[in-house]
Amino acid sequence: MSSHIVQGTRASRVYLVGAGPGAPDLLTLRAARLLEQADIVLYDALVHPETLALASRAKLVDVGKRSGARSTDQRFICRFLVGAARRYQTVVRLKGGDPMLFGRAQEELDALRAEGIEVEVVPGITAALAASAQLQAPLTRRGDSRSVLFLTPRVGAGQRSHDWARSSRAADTLALYMAAGDAEGTLQQLTASGWSGDTAIALVESASLPSSRSWRGTLDELPRLARALGSGPVMLLAGAALAQQAECPSPPMWRGESVAEAVNEV
Amino acid sequence: MSSHIVQGTRASRVYLVGAGPGAPDLLTLRAARLLEQADIVLYDALVHPETLALASRAKLVDVGKRSGARSTDQRFICRFLVGAARRYQTVVRLKGGDPMLFGRAQEELDALRAEGIEVEVVPGITAALAASAQLQAPLTRRGDSRSVLFLTPRVGAGQRSHDWARSSRAADTLALYMAAGDAEGTLQQLTASGWSGDTAIALVESASLPSSRSWRGTLDELPRLARALGSGPVMLLAGAALAQQAECPSPPMWRGESVAEAVNEV
Repeated sequence: MSSHIVQGTRASRVYLVGAGPGAPDLLTLRAARLLEQADIVLYDALVHPETLALASRAKLVDVGKRSGARSTDQRFICRFLVGAARRYQTVVRLKGGDPMLFGRAQEELDALRAEGIEVEVVPGITAALAASAQLQAPLTRRGDSRSVLFLTPRVGAGQRSHDWARSSRAADTLALYMAAGDAEGTLQQLTASGWSGDTAIALVESASLPSSRSWRGTLDELPRLARALGSGPVMLLAGAALAQQAECPSPPMWRGESVAEAVNEV
Repeated sequence: MSSHIVQGTRASRVYLVGAGPGAPDLLTLRAARLLEQADIVLYDALVHPETLALASRAKLVDVGKRSGARSTDQRFICRFLVGAARRYQTVVRLKGGDPMLFGRAQEELDALRAEGIEVEVVPGITAALAASAQLQAPLTRRGDSRSVLFLTPRVGAGQRSHDWARSSRAADTLALYMAAGDAEGTLQQLTASGWSGDTAIALVESASLPSSRSWRGTLDELPRLARALGSGPVMLLAGAALAQQAECPSPPMWRGESVAEAVNEV
């Protein structure tokens, strides 16, 4: 890998890298190494400062987009990525969670390919799996929960709306991203599409971080539970697999240690 | 975290840890550190030797289960875990992919909780995301592919069979685990449940490893494509999001370097 850090000896490469759910030590070893080697890092709003600190030699550019907040236009990000690849050898595009799941990777891949720029994609831990781990509630269960639907009800500006809930009933377990903003609407759509009001659910805010909070209840209780939510990203899990209450749920294991130190300990 | 390696000063703890899809550098930093600290590691068949090598002070126990091959009974694994927690302080149960997705974590969590043993779950990169990254084919696409169904058609011994395909049609993208063993049956069930024969698919064997191979085509071609498969684990992806052929797909980035060395470089 050392050839990557020698300027000019090979073509530039852009890495679309999953930063994971939040806790810096849920980054992959590959992602950590790429951050160390990066010349420039374009990062999203929810990437942890400790994660960015690994990119010690890189120029850091915040292109954060968060629902409802001011955001950087996707077309601008694509142009910026192409520009960065022309100036820098190792470009990291750091995305919350996994780049290929609700990450708008297609637009960035298309823009880079159109310019003939080399790309690699490095997967990350997606928020649903971090939430499940934290709750100690598996998303599948042998014999009764064999399918998990990952979806988002959120519709971007300029997009046609969609009947997202209709597709949800056939799955055993639901993992809904960005669904808590309109808890009342989510409840209505899910019950209208056949989900029972007594379906077990869990809400997890800021999964994997020390500040994380979670609530368990039934689908009917969603609007009430959602009123307690803060401003962190929220995962909504639902289905029979969630019904089994953990006897001894644990807090997220990352408690704020320096991740650089953690890496050195390994 | 150093208290974990001092025997007898605190209660034992069992960590259900995701080893990721195969490439050792797709392990999380947290998992790498836990392996370093582990007194004993119970691992599955598909965990890479380089990953196990991180557990330099641990007793290593192979409890590998692979479909069709001789396997360790799940009840034995649960009893073994409980026994290990009585003898060792830091017990790592290392599972391929993510522990909470098709990992039979519920049975192990139940067994440990019944004995009052502390547990933490550490998420891992699941194979579908590694396959998507390798193909450079996002599983979601803004505006048209908003839901992804993760499921397995495989039915364990003693389980009732299930109409898995019926739940699949409503999702935009499918990620099928362990579906290639009966490619003809998978094709029949998917088409019977409404998937068109010309739906774009991809098969990825041994995602993320240097030995990985992948094929793209249409659902109709599944049986023919599956004939080329070897003995590695296979991910089947299907849906409109797969239709966009990558112009410059890249090989998996891990090419066999020592992961211990990679960790030290960080």
